[in-house]
Amino acid sequence: MTKRIYIFSPSSAIRDKAVVRRGAARLKALGHEVELDEAVFAIHMRFAGDDATRLAAIHRAAASGADVALITRGGYGLTRLLPGIKYKAVAKAVHGGMRFVGLSDFTAFQNAVLAKTGAVTWSGPALGEDFGVEGEPDEIMQACFEDLVDGRGEGTGWQLPKPEAQAKPVNIKGVLWGGNLAIVSALAGTPWLPQVKGGILFLEDVHEHPYRVERMLTQLLYAGVLGKQKAIVLGHFTNYKPVPHDKGYRLQTVVDWLRTQVKAPVFTGLPFGHVPTKVALPVGAKVHLAVEGRDAFLVWGHLH
Amino acid sequence: MTKRIYIFSPSSAIRDKAVVRRGAARLKALGHEVELDEAVFAIHMRFAGDDATRLAAIHRAAASGADVALITRGGYGLTRLLPGIKYKAVAKAVHGGMRFVGLSDFTAFQNAVLAKTGAVTWSGPALGEDFGVEGEPDEIMQACFEDLVDGRGEGTGWQLPKPEAQAKPVNIKGVLWGGNLAIVSALAGTPWLPQVKGGILFLEDVHEHPYRVERMLTQLLYAGVLGKQKAIVLGHFTNYKPVPHDKGYRLQTVVDWLRTQVKAPVFTGLPFGHVPTKVALPVGAKVHLAVEGRDAFLVWGHLH
Repeated sequence: MTKRIYIFSPSSAIRDKAVVRRGAARLKALGHEVELDEAVFAIHMRFAGDDATRLAAIHRAAASGADVALITRGGYGLTRLLPGIKYKAVAKAVHGGMRFVGLSDFTAFQNAVLAKTGAVTWSGPALGEDFGVEGEPDEIMQACFEDLVDGRGEGTGWQLPKPEAQAKPVNIKGVLWGGNLAIVSALAGTPWLPQVKGGILFLEDVHEHPYRVERMLTQLLYAGVLGKQKAIVLGHFTNYKPVPHDKGYRLQTVVDWLRTQVKAPVFTGLPFGHVPTKVALPVGAKVHLAVEGRDAFLVWGHLH
Repeated sequence: MTKRIYIFSPSSAIRDKAVVRRGAARLKALGHEVELDEAVFAIHMRFAGDDATRLAAIHRAAASGADVALITRGGYGLTRLLPGIKYKAVAKAVHGGMRFVGLSDFTAFQNAVLAKTGAVTWSGPALGEDFGVEGEPDEIMQACFEDLVDGRGEGTGWQLPKPEAQAKPVNIKGVLWGGNLAIVSALAGTPWLPQVKGGILFLEDVHEHPYRVERMLTQLLYAGVLGKQKAIVLGHFTNYKPVPHDKGYRLQTVVDWLRTQVKAPVFTGLPFGHVPTKVALPVGAKVHLAVEGRDAFLVWGHLH
C-alpha cells in the first residue's frame, strides 16, 4: 500500500545530494510517495542548517501528516536541539499514526520524546546511508523497513552467539528503549533520559574504542540505569581501532565485565547499529524478549 | 626542603619503564625522596594491574605517609574503580597533609573524592608525561609542582586572549573543581559528580573533536551543572583532528555557543591540559578568581 514518507535532516549536513536523491528514488520505486523537507539540504557548518532551521524541519515533519518521518542521516546536532523540540506536537503526530524513523544521533530525539511523552518512535535505517547506497540496499533492512511502513511488523529475531545459548527458555517483558550508546550516556543526569524501570535496553555504537564503550556503560551503571533493566541487548559496535596498548583488552572484555556488574542478562548480536543489516525497533514500546537456545526474539505485537 | 613523593599507577599500564625511571630520577635530583609503589609497573591488558591491584595501589599511596602521591600516567581505568575506593582513608591522608596529584583519567578520582569527602586534591602533572620527558621538563610546570610540593603555592595566573579582556575588574569566589571534560561529563548522573554550587569549573581535554566537546558540555548544561557555576574556565583542548565536514565549525564555535547558554563568564587560556606547560590547581578548594584587563588570577591562599 502506498505510504507517504517525509524526509528531513535534523542533524548533520548532507554533503552528497545524490545519496539522498538515490534513496528517495528507491523509496518511490517501492511504491511510496516521498516528500523532501524544504531544508533537507540546508547547511550551517557541520549542521543541516542552524538550530532554528533543524527544529523547524522536525516540526514540519511532525505536522506533515505523513505515515513515516525518516531522517536523511545522523552525525551530530540533535543534542543541541532538545530544549527546543515541541514534544507535544511530536507525540500528537505519533498518536495520529506517524512513525519517526532513524538512528545514531537521532537517539537523542527518540529518548527525549520517550522521556517527555512516552510516545513510540523507531530505531531503524536512515535514508542516505541505508537506501542511498550504490548497489542494492540490504534486503533484511529493507524488509524490516517495509514492515514498519506498512504497520505489519510485529517483532524481529536473531541468532545469539554460541556461548549465549540458553538451556532454559527466557521470557522477559518490558519497555524497549536505547539506541546509540554515546547518545544515551550523554543523556544521563539530564531530563531527557527516559526513566525506564524493568526495561529492555538495547545499545550500539560506532567509532568508539571498547574502553570508551566501557566508560559509557560505567556511567549508565553508576547512574542506576543498568540496574533497573530486565535485560540488556547489544547490537553492533563497529569501526573502532584497536591499539597495541590494548594487549588483549577487546569488546568481549567489556561484555564480560558488564555481566559481572548487572544481574540482568546481557545478550549480543542484535542486528542493529552502523551496519547494513539492521532491523527496525520500537523505542518506548512494551516488548517481549524470548530466547530459546540460540534463537532470540523481540516481539511487540501490533502497534497502532 | 626534602619531601617524600609516592609514585603509583591507578589507570593505564606503563609501557616504557624508562620514562618513569627518568621522571623519578628528576624528582630525586630536585632533592626529594621518591618511592615507587610495588605495582607501579603492573600490567593487566591496558591497565596497570587488575582492578584489585590498582585499588590497592591507591590505598597504599594513601597509607604511605608521603607528602605527595603522584600518578605515573592517566589513560583509562579509574572510572571502573570508583565504587571500591576507601574515600575516608583518602580524606584522612589529605587531612594529614598528603597532596594527591595527577590529571586526565585521575579526574575521576579527584571529583569522586571531592563528592564523597570534600577533601582537596591537585590537578597537576603526571610523573611520566611531565617529568619523564627526554630533555628538560617544562619550567613553569616544574615551578608550580615545586610550589605545590613545598606547600608554598598560593595561586596562579595567566593572560586571557584579547577578546576576553575585561573593562571592569572581575572578582569571583567559589570552589574550584573539574579537570578532564570527558571524565567530568561521564560522572553526570552518578554519585561521584560533586554537587558544587557557585563554583568555578575548569575543563580541558585531548583527542576530542569540538563537536564531542560540545556534546559533553551539553550534558553538563542539561544536568544543571553549568548553570550553578559562577565561572567556567577552559584550559587546553588539544590533539583532535578537524575534518572537511566541519566547514568552519571549530573549538571557538563551541566556546561562543557555550557563552549563549550560561550566564556565568567563560574564560579561556588556562595553562592546563594535555600540554607541557601546566599549572597545579587545587580541586575542591575555595579560590578567588580575579580578572583585570587580560590578566587572570586564581588565588587560594595557603592550603594546609
